[in-house]
Order: sequence, then structure tokens, then C-alpha cells
Amino acid sequence: KQVILLPGDGVGREIMEGAKAVLNAIASEYNHEFIVHEHAIGGDAIDRYDTPLPEDTVKACKNADAILLGAVGGPKWDGMPAGKRPEKGLLGIRKSLGLFANLRPVQGFGPLVHASPLKTELVDGCDILIVRELTGGLYFGKPSGRSADGEEVVDTLRYTRSEIERIVEKGFEAARMRSGKLTSVDKANVLESSRMWREVVDEKAKDYPDVTVEHQLVDSAAMKLITNPKQFDVIVTENLFGDILSDEASVLTGSLGMLPSASLRTDGVGLYEPVHGSAPDIAGEGIVNPLGMILSTAMMLKYSFGMEEEAAEIERAVTECLEDGYHTRDLDVKGGKVVGTDEMVKRIIDNLS
Amino acid sequence: KQVILLPGDGVGREIMEGAKAVLNAIASEYNHEFIVHEHAIGGDAIDRYDTPLPEDTVKACKNADAILLGAVGGPKWDGMPAGKRPEKGLLGIRKSLGLFANLRPVQGFGPLVHASPLKTELVDGCDILIVRELTGGLYFGKPSGRSADGEEVVDTLRYTRSEIERIVEKGFEAARMRSGKLTSVDKANVLESSRMWREVVDEKAKDYPDVTVEHQLVDSAAMKLITNPKQFDVIVTENLFGDILSDEASVLTGSLGMLPSASLRTDGVGLYEPVHGSAPDIAGEGIVNPLGMILSTAMMLKYSFGMEEEAAEIERAVTECLEDGYHTRDLDVKGGKVVGTDEMVKRIIDNLS
Ligand SMILES: CC(C)[C@H](C(=O)O)[C@@H](O)C(=O)O
Ligand SMILES: CC(C)[C@H](C(=O)O)[C@@H](O)C(=O)O
Repeated sequence: KQVILLPGDGVGREIMEGAKAVLNAIASEYNHEFIVHEHAIGGDAIDRYDTPLPEDTVKACKNADAILLGAVGGPKWDGMPAGKRPEKGLLGIRKSLGLFANLRPVQGFGPLVHASPLKTELVDGCDILIVRELTGGLYFGKPSGRSADGEEVVDTLRYTRSEIERIVEKGFEAARMRSGKLTSVDKANVLESSRMWREVVDEKAKDYPDVTVEHQLVDSAAMKLITNPKQFDVIVTENLFGDILSDEASVLTGSLGMLPSASLRTDGVGLYEPVHGSAPDIAGEGIVNPLGMILSTAMMLKYSFGMEEEAAEIERAVTECLEDGYHTRDLDVKGGKVVGTDEMVKRIIDNLS
Repeated sequence: KQVILLPGDGVGREIMEGAKAVLNAIASEYNHEFIVHEHAIGGDAIDRYDTPLPEDTVKACKNADAILLGAVGGPKWDGMPAGKRPEKGLLGIRKSLGLFANLRPVQGFGPLVHASPLKTELVDGCDILIVRELTGGLYFGKPSGRSADGEEVVDTLRYTRSEIERIVEKGFEAARMRSGKLTSVDKANVLESSRMWREVVDEKAKDYPDVTVEHQLVDSAAMKLITNPKQFDVIVTENLFGDILSDEASVLTGSLGMLPSASLRTDGVGLYEPVHGSAPDIAGEGIVNPLGMILSTAMMLKYSFGMEEEAAEIERAVTECLEDGYHTRDLDVKGGKVVGTDEMVKRIIDNLS
């Protein structure tokens, strides 16, 4: 299996080391071969190659079976012109590989739930999967820019019916494999694109009689994620709504640093990255939480390589580590012990059989 | 003072009765004359006049000093074509009066704070004002619609520089009158419109050296509203982001049913409405919370009529009523007593001097 590593910026390199170590451990335990190559993206690529997404990186990713990405961005590149910003690297790789389905699981971990900003009873047992459209909408619609006199600016929210269909299908498939409940989020009382979205969801619903579908307006969903997050199972929504709601949801369970994500297309190729950002303020200090990256690696094994057992083993090793009370500085485990990135990784590997 | 009442749908009529009663009480106490006229909007107007916003209503509102609105919408009209939906009435009146600045205060009320979904220490003392742009962006941008073959759909996020300038100024003005901190929310790492927004904020900042400005990305703001809401004082943002974030913020303090809003332009004319919706499920039962509407009326006295004292008196009467333990079913006051809409209104009026 060909795996491309894109460490990127900030803490990206440190967490990628953790992912590599875990991948090696799984390889020797299960007799797999993962061929890994590292490439540049984001600010790191701007510094070295004067572009956030070198051709070389795109080419390597196109030939890969899966990609692990650390994080991109940082204040160093904030003043850059639009085309030369670290985020362009991330948006570019998603788009050029056609990774249209972003899966963002939000799950409570027993030893962490007490650290949620929400009252424990509201989040205990919370288990949500957000399915976000990732290559359409306002992120990529043209026209996008200013009028010649600089007095007007426009961005465009554009979707084709088939773009909506394929992500809605992913939502239904995910719901079918979980508890059978799908919440589709839109702004159909205002946006034409949301009205087509809702239409497609209602059409597809006929193919999934086993799935219960509910429509929610995005403003209302933003409230209900807080007042009653356990009402949600799978949420499917367009790119920007998904960006906002998945970040909102990511802090509900008190464990942002733990959360993985997968960006997929239909053939199993995928890009996996933690939900947390590049955290430039703590980069290089050896204290970043590697678990979001490690759990992203587990998602890769499961979704891109069909290695369910290996993925489950990593997840078990992570849970065990927290239950033993070991955690990085960003987490809060009652009676636990704060350790650095390397020790955390070592403990996970020790916990693998 | 000419005041137009637009009760609208669902519980709109009941809460409007409360507003009227309070307005009458204030009029006789302070010797003011409020000339009130009622007009149709939303689903009610669709039923009676086959349009969510009759010409007559627009004309009356254009001649008014202020407008009180109950709520619009309900499942009854959900199947209607885009042009004949209750929300079109609301969007239409905002747009045709040019009410570009939506003010949404989110405040904790002592007796209610324990009912917040968040841990008490996170929200106790929380006091945020969201300043949302209300007549631009994706809500009104053209083109908006489907391609001839129905295979593609588009919505347009459009702003002129002066539209951004005037709302950003409102944000700075509000921050100056409060604690001097302004958070501007955008998605400048992706959207061109957000980059112009950020530029305008940085320019205007020079005119307000007494205000501290911070930029946040909308996804990040959606997180921080939950993890640390007290870091915010005034938030200024564009229409759709403001819609999502203000609804998210509205549930933080456990008192959605209490929250008022104002939609203003520069000459003092404004439309005032509670944040909660039309709640068709409890309409007509005499149990809806009238306080959001009553506090919206207080905002009208303050912002449109410059009656600071009268507004403060209403606010004091509301606080007193809660401190006495009286509340409607939607609220949770420890050791309190649930009363109906009418009794709640009566108690508020009794609490006025
Ligand atoms: C960095 C940014 C462009 C990106 C996005 O908005 O998609 C990030 O917020 C994410 O959610 O992965
Ligand atoms: C009813 C709807 C069109 C409206 C909006 O999105 O502006 C509402 O959610 C609001 O916030 O006042």
C-alpha cells in the first residue's frame, strides 16, 4: 500500500512521526507492507517551493492509495496573497483528488467527558458522524473576486445535482451502517441550492426505507448541537455548513485533540487528518496530542485498506492509554498524568498486542 | 410615534397582545402616545391575501417610526413555492426598509443561568452582542436559481464595500459603547468576500483606536462560543454567519425564549422581534413566553424612540418577575412557579412603577 505523508506546518511534523511509528508497529504485527513517501504542502511548501501545493505533491498523491496529512497554516503566512496561502494547498489537494466526502466522527471518550463545556449528562454517550461535502459550494464556485473598481465582491455557491446526489448517498450509507437516522442540514427557507439539496434528499430517501430522515435548518442545527447533541446520529450537509457545524461539534465532548477525519471519494482513496489545526504556538515543544493523527491513521486502515481489525486495535490502544490516565496537556483526565508526545506514542504502541 | 404591529404566525398573535399591553402601560405612565396599527405578514398574509408581504403592509411600515414583529412560518406553508413562503415576508420587509443592522444581545439572567446546557461557570455573567448584516450576502445575491436543465443550482454571496462599511461601523460603535472589544468573524482563508470584509475592518479600526479588534474564522468562532463564550463582547459578521452564530449563541444562557432582537438602519427606524420562532406546536394554548417580545418592545423604546428610562423600566420589571420565581413553561427557575402568557404579562405590568 502506497501512503503519502504530508506533515505540513506547525505541529504537523511531530504528529506525523507518531503516525509513522504506529503504522510501522501495525505493519510488523500484521505483516503488512506500507510504502511511505513524504511530500510538502502548505506553508512548508511555500517556504521551500514557493507554492502551497507543488506539482510533485499532487502527482505523488494521485498515485497513492491513501494520504496522511498533519496540518497546514500559521501566522507566518497570513499576509500572503490569496493564491499563496497554506490553506490553498489543502483545498487544492482535496479538489484535485476529488475527495468529496468528509467524514468527521465526534465521540465522547469516557475519561474525558467530564471536561466537556456542556453538562455531562448532555454529552455522555454522544456519538455523531458529520458527513460534509468537500469539493463544491462556496469554497470553489466561480465567479469569486472583486469588480474592476474594487467596490463589489462576490463568491458563488454552486452545486450540480450529481454532486449533491453522491454526498447525500454517502450520508444515507453511513446512517444505514449506524443507527439508521439521518439529519440533513440546509437553509432551504432562503437558499435555492438548499432547496435542490432537500429535493435530492427526499428522492434518495426512497432508496433507503430503513433510514429515518429529518431536515433541519442550519441555524436550528447549530442550536440543537448544544441543547441536545444526542439527538443526532449522522448529519449530512454542504461544504460551508459542514465546516461550521463540525467545528462546533468538535468541542462538545471535551476532546478536540482526539478527533480524526477522513476525506474520501468512491474508490477508497482517501486523505486523513486530525481535526485540530497546526497550533504554531506549541510546535516543536514535544507536547502536542498525537491521538487525533493516530486515530486518523486508524480511519485510513479501515476506510482505504479495509483493515477493520487493525483499525479497531489502534482505537482500543488509544482508549486504554486514556483509561490508564496518560494524556497530553490539552486533555483533562481526572487523576491522570500529563505526558509528552513521544511518550504518548510509545504507550499506544506498547498497548498494541 | 407610529408603531406597526405585525403579529404573523403561530404564537405571534399571543405575544403581540403582551407587547401591546406593556406599551399601553408605558404610555399612560409616561404620558406618551403610541399610535399602533396592525398589518399582515407571513403565512397569515398568504392565507388572507395570497402573498407573504402585502403592498399595504410595506406601505404602512415605510411610514412608521418602528415595527414590532411576532414570528413567521410554520409547517402549514412548508410546501409552498419559494415566492410564497412566510419567510419571504420577513426577508422582504427587512430588505424594503433597508434594515441592514441586526442586533442580537445574548445575556444571562441570574435565575435562569443554571438551566444553560453549558456548565454554569462558563456562562455566568456572559454578555454578548451580535451585530449581523441583514440585507446582503447569500440571502439576496443574484443570480440565485437553477440552470435551464435543472442540473445545476447557484446562490450568490455579494457585497458592496459600502454595505460592509456601514455594518462594520455599527459594530465598532456598539463596541465603543460597551467594553471596547470587537470580534469580526469571517472565512477569510477561503472567501473573497471575507477578505474584503477583513480589509474594511482593519481600515475602520483606525477610526476607533479605543476599540480592540480581533479577527476570527467562522468555524473557530462556532467552537469558542461554546468553550469560552465570555471571551466575546461585540461580534460583527455577515448575514449567514450571523444567522448561524446568533442562533448558536441564543441557547448558551438557557433563556432562548427571553431574547429580543432589533433590525435597524441609520435613521432610527427599526423592526423588533423576539429570537424564538413561531412555535406552531404551542400556538393558541396561552403558554408561550411573552418576554422575548416584551424585551423587543423595550429595545424599540430605546433604539427607535430614545426612551432609555422607559426601556430600562421594562427590563427591570422582567428581571423582577423572574426573581420572584414566575416564569413560563419553557424556562426553568429553581423553586419557581409556572404561569401562563397572560399572567406573565400582567405581572410585568404590575412590576412597572
Ligand atoms: C483550513 C480551511 C480551509 C479548512 C476548511 O474550511 O475546509 C478547515 O477549516 C477544515 O475544516 O478542514
Ligand atoms: C426565517 C429566516 C429567513 C430568518 C433568517 O435566516 O434570517 C431567521 O432565521 C432569523 O434569523 O431571523
